[in-house]
Amino acid sequence: MVESMTKNIILDLDTGVDDALAIAYALGSPELKLIGITGTYGNVLMQTGMDNDLAILDLLGAPDVPVFPGIPHAQESDDFEVLEISKFIHGKDGVGEVDIKASDRKPEDTDAVDFMIESVKKYGDDLVIVATGPMTNLAAAIRKDPTFKDNANIVIMGGALVTPGNVNAWTEANISQDPEAANELFRSGAKVTMIGLDVTLQTLLTYKETQQWRDLGTQAGTFLADMTDFYIKAYETTAPHLGGCGLHDPLAVAVAVDPSLVTCLDINMKVDVEGPTRGRTIGDETRLNDPEKTMKVAVGVDVDRFLKEFMSRITSVAESK
Amino acid sequence: MVESMTKNIILDLDTGVDDALAIAYALGSPELKLIGITGTYGNVLMQTGMDNDLAILDLLGAPDVPVFPGIPHAQESDDFEVLEISKFIHGKDGVGEVDIKASDRKPEDTDAVDFMIESVKKYGDDLVIVATGPMTNLAAAIRKDPTFKDNANIVIMGGALVTPGNVNAWTEANISQDPEAANELFRSGAKVTMIGLDVTLQTLLTYKETQQWRDLGTQAGTFLADMTDFYIKAYETTAPHLGGCGLHDPLAVAVAVDPSLVTCLDINMKVDVEGPTRGRTIGDETRLNDPEKTMKVAVGVDVDRFLKEFMSRITSVAESK
Repeated sequence: MVESMTKNIILDLDTGVDDALAIAYALGSPELKLIGITGTYGNVLMQTGMDNDLAILDLLGAPDVPVFPGIPHAQESDDFEVLEISKFIHGKDGVGEVDIKASDRKPEDTDAVDFMIESVKKYGDDLVIVATGPMTNLAAAIRKDPTFKDNANIVIMGGALVTPGNVNAWTEANISQDPEAANELFRSGAKVTMIGLDVTLQTLLTYKETQQWRDLGTQAGTFLADMTDFYIKAYETTAPHLGGCGLHDPLAVAVAVDPSLVTCLDINMKVDVEGPTRGRTIGDETRLNDPEKTMKVAVGVDVDRFLKEFMSRITSVAESK
Repeated sequence: MVESMTKNIILDLDTGVDDALAIAYALGSPELKLIGITGTYGNVLMQTGMDNDLAILDLLGAPDVPVFPGIPHAQESDDFEVLEISKFIHGKDGVGEVDIKASDRKPEDTDAVDFMIESVKKYGDDLVIVATGPMTNLAAAIRKDPTFKDNANIVIMGGALVTPGNVNAWTEANISQDPEAANELFRSGAKVTMIGLDVTLQTLLTYKETQQWRDLGTQAGTFLADMTDFYIKAYETTAPHLGGCGLHDPLAVAVAVDPSLVTCLDINMKVDVEGPTRGRTIGDETRLNDPEKTMKVAVGVDVDRFLKEFMSRITSVAESK
């Protein structure tokens, strides 16, 4: 059997400015076939995120990609409310309070967890799931189908291993939404590559780059530039020492395309779910000496190469739309 | 100028079972010349540690190595009391409650901080300081001599970056004794290699190995075996999942001899001194994107090669005494 030239990808998103950039990166990558987006909550309500997904897919010329509704809140909660800080960073609408035409489409009837499970069964190693929100859908898939953890290839944006968190000194935002789900994923034995703040805060975008999209003079270019400028502006307040905005979610997609963009530590991870450090991602001391390491945590990134890929792929999508 | 074949080493110790093994490792290393031991507090009171140093130097045939008194407590404290857990792990006397003949010698009059400063001036790159207790003496040297941080080569045993602490979920014992001093060292720009729990809990010793020392039939072999057995026994209670005792301090000496025993992450570090995670060693987010990284944190270790070196070097010291 000849290995297919393109890899199927599912994006599990709470769209969000950098989730929107992750969609653009995926659509701009000839190595990837985006077979679906699954909805989760976090930067915005799940429903808002799915509305954003559908609108962005239309705008970027991919109106056939289906969107599947996931679980709209943490597994130990029965509700979810968007944090003020999320509204500040992503805008109340999740896309930087920039106008975008609503899609005529609706999300599918099939739910996200079933779509993930069926896709892993169908495509196996020809599929990668990139999750850039809470791990709630992934943990549910692991619980629902015992074969899922052994066959899924997962890249997540989330956590921080060798640097502090962004919610507090020890917790990253995606993990903080549902520490139990992340802990379940990390301890499951699933093959997970963690793209955390350790690397995403090294990959920064500035107004100089967004201007290049605006200069394209296209609808998509203008939308992406305006949306991302809102995000860069928020970073000027939340993390002024950085000098730009972190390209969290697109980096996770980039690693799904080309793992050589990052250097990883092979390690068995856990998430603290109790005590003062609840929500911290850290090595699991009880599996420190297991010869098998099921996770890879990115601790280094080729910043220049990633930024070049990022600009070239996003621009290729934006210039014709 | 021909580079000298041996490297001078200063051990900054709170002796302690694994500090004693660090002395033996240094004396068993033809690549090293032990020019002095500086005293600190932690596993035991500083005075007890220095008494142990002198007795062990006598026992292992190095009765000429001087011992220098350091600062006997944390920089923001004016007293130090040994923790119950330290007594449990190292014995009340620090050497596993095993008889050892007291030395006739006394510590020097020169203090540890001055000895470190003078030695760095004298030997420069031909000197390595290996610190396996709190960083109090090192921080004092940095404050006292502005050239110290630029010229000292330092290896510490302490901290935990990718695994939990051993005092609590986020703090390692040496750092916990004086977080301010460790933070000062980490942020100083000094060249520091951190050998933390991340690697030292991978390098385990069992009764099988200590029996080899006992079988030598020498005084030193019997002492080292009995002392270390006390320590292994404590580990059966404190960390039963490991199946042996961690070779913390000797690994730091081994890395001073041969840095290729570990793989390191180049990173600028800090210590949390405030908030719930006081005492945590973590990357400094404000220097994440500085091109210059002043610290190396060991995240991987060649366990088999280290254990082979460890057994051969300790045995070479113990077999003739």
